[in-house]
Amino acid sequence: MAEASVKPTPLLKDELDIVIPTIRNLDFLEMWRPFFEQYHLIIVQDGDPSKTIKVPEGFDYELYNRNDINRILGPKASCISFKDSACRCFGYMVSKKKYIYTIDDDCFVAKDPSNKDINALEQHIKNLLSPATPNFFNTLYDPYREGADFVRGYPFSLREGVPTAVSHGLWLNIPDYDAPTQLVKPRERNSRYVDAVLTIPKGTLFPMCGMNLGFNRELIGPAMYFGLMGDGQPIGRYDDMWAGWCVKVICDHMGWGVKTGLPYIWHSKASNPFTNLRKEYKGIFWQEDLIPFFQSVVLPKECTTVQKCYIELSKLVKEKLGPIDPYFVKLSEAMVTWIEAWDELNPAGEDSK
Amino acid sequence: MAEASVKPTPLLKDELDIVIPTIRNLDFLEMWRPFFEQYHLIIVQDGDPSKTIKVPEGFDYELYNRNDINRILGPKASCISFKDSACRCFGYMVSKKKYIYTIDDDCFVAKDPSNKDINALEQHIKNLLSPATPNFFNTLYDPYREGADFVRGYPFSLREGVPTAVSHGLWLNIPDYDAPTQLVKPRERNSRYVDAVLTIPKGTLFPMCGMNLGFNRELIGPAMYFGLMGDGQPIGRYDDMWAGWCVKVICDHMGWGVKTGLPYIWHSKASNPFTNLRKEYKGIFWQEDLIPFFQSVVLPKECTTVQKCYIELSKLVKEKLGPIDPYFVKLSEAMVTWIEAWDELNPAGEDSK
Repeated sequence: MAEASVKPTPLLKDELDIVIPTIRNLDFLEMWRPFFEQYHLIIVQDGDPSKTIKVPEGFDYELYNRNDINRILGPKASCISFKDSACRCFGYMVSKKKYIYTIDDDCFVAKDPSNKDINALEQHIKNLLSPATPNFFNTLYDPYREGADFVRGYPFSLREGVPTAVSHGLWLNIPDYDAPTQLVKPRERNSRYVDAVLTIPKGTLFPMCGMNLGFNRELIGPAMYFGLMGDGQPIGRYDDMWAGWCVKVICDHMGWGVKTGLPYIWHSKASNPFTNLRKEYKGIFWQEDLIPFFQSVVLPKECTTVQKCYIELSKLVKEKLGPIDPYFVKLSEAMVTWIEAWDELNPAGEDSK
Repeated sequence: MAEASVKPTPLLKDELDIVIPTIRNLDFLEMWRPFFEQYHLIIVQDGDPSKTIKVPEGFDYELYNRNDINRILGPKASCISFKDSACRCFGYMVSKKKYIYTIDDDCFVAKDPSNKDINALEQHIKNLLSPATPNFFNTLYDPYREGADFVRGYPFSLREGVPTAVSHGLWLNIPDYDAPTQLVKPRERNSRYVDAVLTIPKGTLFPMCGMNLGFNRELIGPAMYFGLMGDGQPIGRYDDMWAGWCVKVICDHMGWGVKTGLPYIWHSKASNPFTNLRKEYKGIFWQEDLIPFFQSVVLPKECTTVQKCYIELSKLVKEKLGPIDPYFVKLSEAMVTWIEAWDELNPAGEDSK
């Protein structure tokens, strides 16, 4: 592995929170107990606040429902989605830790090819603590992994890498398909374990899935806004995608890296494709305009913090995407509200800005 | 797999040539016999033409040494390197086939994790016959492979993909390291089999290794020039790198894709790191200027053929890299000679231009 790598993997017990949008399944935490019990959990209940979420004994957690969000944020609570897992980003805001790991409650512990349980969190920590290489592609994948390095022809000036902001993990069993693909291929399962971590090159967008995601909250937290989805909104299932496009554009501007690949989790069940189609159908055609928009975004040099980048992006969203649908005007305003709320809960000096 | 994929894999017996720079090892062809015997070989002898290369019975081949190259190209033979495996590109020029596979004589058949011999050529053909996706990153890797597809958030307008021009395969055992890394890590071996093929995104450069490489000669052949290396030149071991940077910039301009990943070959022995250091040392600091140069190249719209792109690139090389060292002026002139020789041997209408 290249010299900059970190080993052995520190556990980051005091530096990482696990954020879960809701827990409908008691088995979920039991299965993850060996890996999660030592961490603090932030559960953001996505539905009816009168219902109670049961958390098994032995876990250290805080739970927020809609009433809590309204109480803490007041009128600014309007930027947090209701009845949608997009509400999870409230957890990113109230955390005080440097790193976040977020996972869905239908994601279980996967096994590697040697049939060993995969400690997903440990791999995310490895990814986040080692540098990223967005400025040139390394054909042997992550050069900081054991047994790997930079190949012949890789410029030496780029081998120090850049800070890693995001670690995007993958899914065995049920792949993260959109509704049309789910409908066309109801039986497709992902059984291919690809033993790789790689940096998504600068200037390249990707579909960021929120199911199994780690990030450096101190670096990129203020851009990890999951948008307006669910109750009262014309769109769903684009919360993580929206965040990913914003995050990637801002990481490229700030000189930070985004990694994808390992670790895998076991995605246990496909969501209903008919419900998904209803949630997605506007997104499916809107994204044809969103991608060229995000590909064309150039942030000015004056944007030296993530907050400044994000406010600038919100202006571009209103100007360029507002004409497509009034939803994007509302979303651009919610982006500003999100930053205001973030700064209120995270006063300057308490985290890096 | 996404709809555009091709299966079963056609063998392309009449459409593919195998180009080998030299054969110092009789075991080499014996080991590949089950996979290569049905194809035509073009062997380009890289050293002393008075020595005879032995080819085992049963192979259909043509062999070119320096005397043949001089006879066929006349004064234009100056663009073909001598005493360096860079001479292999002469084989690309004299071939009349649509596809080329090129491999070094120290590369043997590798085994997959189930201990089965890997048919590298078959995987290259799969890669070349299925589309590439350079405009957006798919997190489940090649969407055209069996058991995979485009994930949620991948724009539908981009799912048709683009033609694949290059298939870059990898190496188990001895990794393709530069001399400094070889010296620092003499015992490092690559034992990680990464079961993936992916498209290198548009706008991203990569280190293209010529050890195990397939390409569509009809599309990108005229840009597959391996430069001036070896005898009489101040540099070696940058032949494939140079070709890769030129090819990638031109593929990005033309809207074609470059894939990397599977198949693996078994790279049997490391070349001498001290000899390599002598060949590489100028390249190691020149590449610090070459990469920003290639990252900044914008080809004009008028460049509608690979030949036009390549001539334009040769002008930029002279103008921007010439001031670094007179070698680049000589190289830029050799790039023009290469295109003239290519067009002479491949008159218009006989291949796609």
